[in-house]
Amino acid sequence: MLKNETVFNPLAIYKEIQNNYTKDAIENNRIISNENFRLFIEMIHSCINELKKYQKITLISKVQRKRYFAYTNGKQKSRPINFDLYVENEKEIITFIWSAVRFNNYKKYSPNDITKYCYTIVVNFCAIVDINKKDDRQTPGKFFEYFISFIMGKKFDVENPNSPISPKKDIEVLNLDRNSKLTIDFYFDLGINKPKFHLPVKTSTRERIIQVWAHQRIIDGVYGLGRFFGIPVILAETKLDSRSLEVIEICVPDQWRIYQMFIAQLKRIYYLDIPNIYRSLNENYPKIYVKQFGEFFYEYNNICD
Amino acid sequence: MLKNETVFNPLAIYKEIQNNYTKDAIENNRIISNENFRLFIEMIHSCINELKKYQKITLISKVQRKRYFAYTNGKQKSRPINFDLYVENEKEIITFIWSAVRFNNYKKYSPNDITKYCYTIVVNFCAIVDINKKDDRQTPGKFFEYFISFIMGKKFDVENPNSPISPKKDIEVLNLDRNSKLTIDFYFDLGINKPKFHLPVKTSTRERIIQVWAHQRIIDGVYGLGRFFGIPVILAETKLDSRSLEVIEICVPDQWRIYQMFIAQLKRIYYLDIPNIYRSLNENYPKIYVKQFGEFFYEYNNICD
Repeated sequence: MLKNETVFNPLAIYKEIQNNYTKDAIENNRIISNENFRLFIEMIHSCINELKKYQKITLISKVQRKRYFAYTNGKQKSRPINFDLYVENEKEIITFIWSAVRFNNYKKYSPNDITKYCYTIVVNFCAIVDINKKDDRQTPGKFFEYFISFIMGKKFDVENPNSPISPKKDIEVLNLDRNSKLTIDFYFDLGINKPKFHLPVKTSTRERIIQVWAHQRIIDGVYGLGRFFGIPVILAETKLDSRSLEVIEICVPDQWRIYQMFIAQLKRIYYLDIPNIYRSLNENYPKIYVKQFGEFFYEYNNICD
Repeated sequence: MLKNETVFNPLAIYKEIQNNYTKDAIENNRIISNENFRLFIEMIHSCINELKKYQKITLISKVQRKRYFAYTNGKQKSRPINFDLYVENEKEIITFIWSAVRFNNYKKYSPNDITKYCYTIVVNFCAIVDINKKDDRQTPGKFFEYFISFIMGKKFDVENPNSPISPKKDIEVLNLDRNSKLTIDFYFDLGINKPKFHLPVKTSTRERIIQVWAHQRIIDGVYGLGRFFGIPVILAETKLDSRSLEVIEICVPDQWRIYQMFIAQLKRIYYLDIPNIYRSLNENYPKIYVKQFGEFFYEYNNICD
């Protein structure tokens, strides 16, 4: 339980999640403990409370069919937040967590709903860090990792009731005379004869995404093709010009096509705020399947086909 | 010729080099014009002059057998500068440029000397940008690209007197129904039946270096193995803690080994300030050849074997 007042601050709760996460993942081989679950709920409440201190400003969206705003304390601004993905209603979010995430039962929620609740939870924390800790990209990135590996870990765990599933970061690269480890964001190994997932988690990628394909290439080379399914989860590709208040999306679809053809094959690329331009990659051959994050919970059984 | 006083400022000369470079590389298909040569000489003088305004502070080197200092204006500090690679004598540097670079005749200079002069030229400009333009990593990076592609371009050009050589950035990725371009730092194509070089140029790499191996993989996949020789040139891997004044090197040799085995083969990795830990990669199988930049001018004919 949260024992004193300081932990009601989102950054203090973040530290608790971080400690707990490390302890659970490393010592107890699972990250989906009740304690973690409770900390995420505290975080949701705490962020919504904290954000009441800030004002919203409407941004000038240069992205077709998307509207963005930002939180500000007058000096610092948060990253752009997608109006149409943002859920204001605290009770709704909490109900989603208690009813869907907790029991891993998403039937009442559409893929778009799941995406919206998850987007709101993550972007609320990111906004608070953006405003209070200038140029800190690590803390939002880590929180996003914790949340995504928690919610997806719960899914993997339920699908695999016989053994607890924990995400791992260091993957053995087998060699005749030398054992090395490749450090990746996450992988989930569901066990013998079961699928394994290579799960990079990034708040944005731009040209840095080549790392994801390169890691997939290494994993394919070491373990064989089709053994690990690469399914990166990305928050958004927006960029805010803090003077003009213009929001753009930075996308490199032609480079993605080259990577998918000449480096390795990724199975899915999930976005919380999916860029329009990447949606079209689903349509043209050679296809890259880029989907809303919420789809994962519906197509789980098809990903590995 | 430089027509007015403003161009004596290193940042103004940088803009001239940038304009000239783009014009020469794109319109005239060569970057080794006399005009460029003269601008680099102006830059050397101008930087040395500018740096007289600043003070030197000795840093606390946590890197074995290396000593570092930084320039400072009292507020901002430059990146760490390696004492033992730094040439104070302006005349010496200018002589190197006029006698060796201009005629592509390096016989009077050892690989270590070549490295030192090039290091000093580049790091002087970087230091000025570090102090005057906070968090600007692009300008030093671009200048480093211009200088390296200039000096190496001159070498390639002299080795290939029949046709002018110009570095290119967009490489065609051939496909049946779609022509795409992969954007890389540079490549030099010496012509039919001649070697081609994939030349990434980075002021530092850390874990981002995976991009270099991934690009090499794509190029190998499109053009065939052994057609492009990957020879990245990197300035340094130092990191300064601006409070404690401690300098460390951030190196990931085990990850490099994995990349070299499971992504693609790089022929050489050249450093201006070579990290100790990467030197050892030359010794152990599977080898990665990591060398001082100056070696390039001596081993040019062996690289492609």
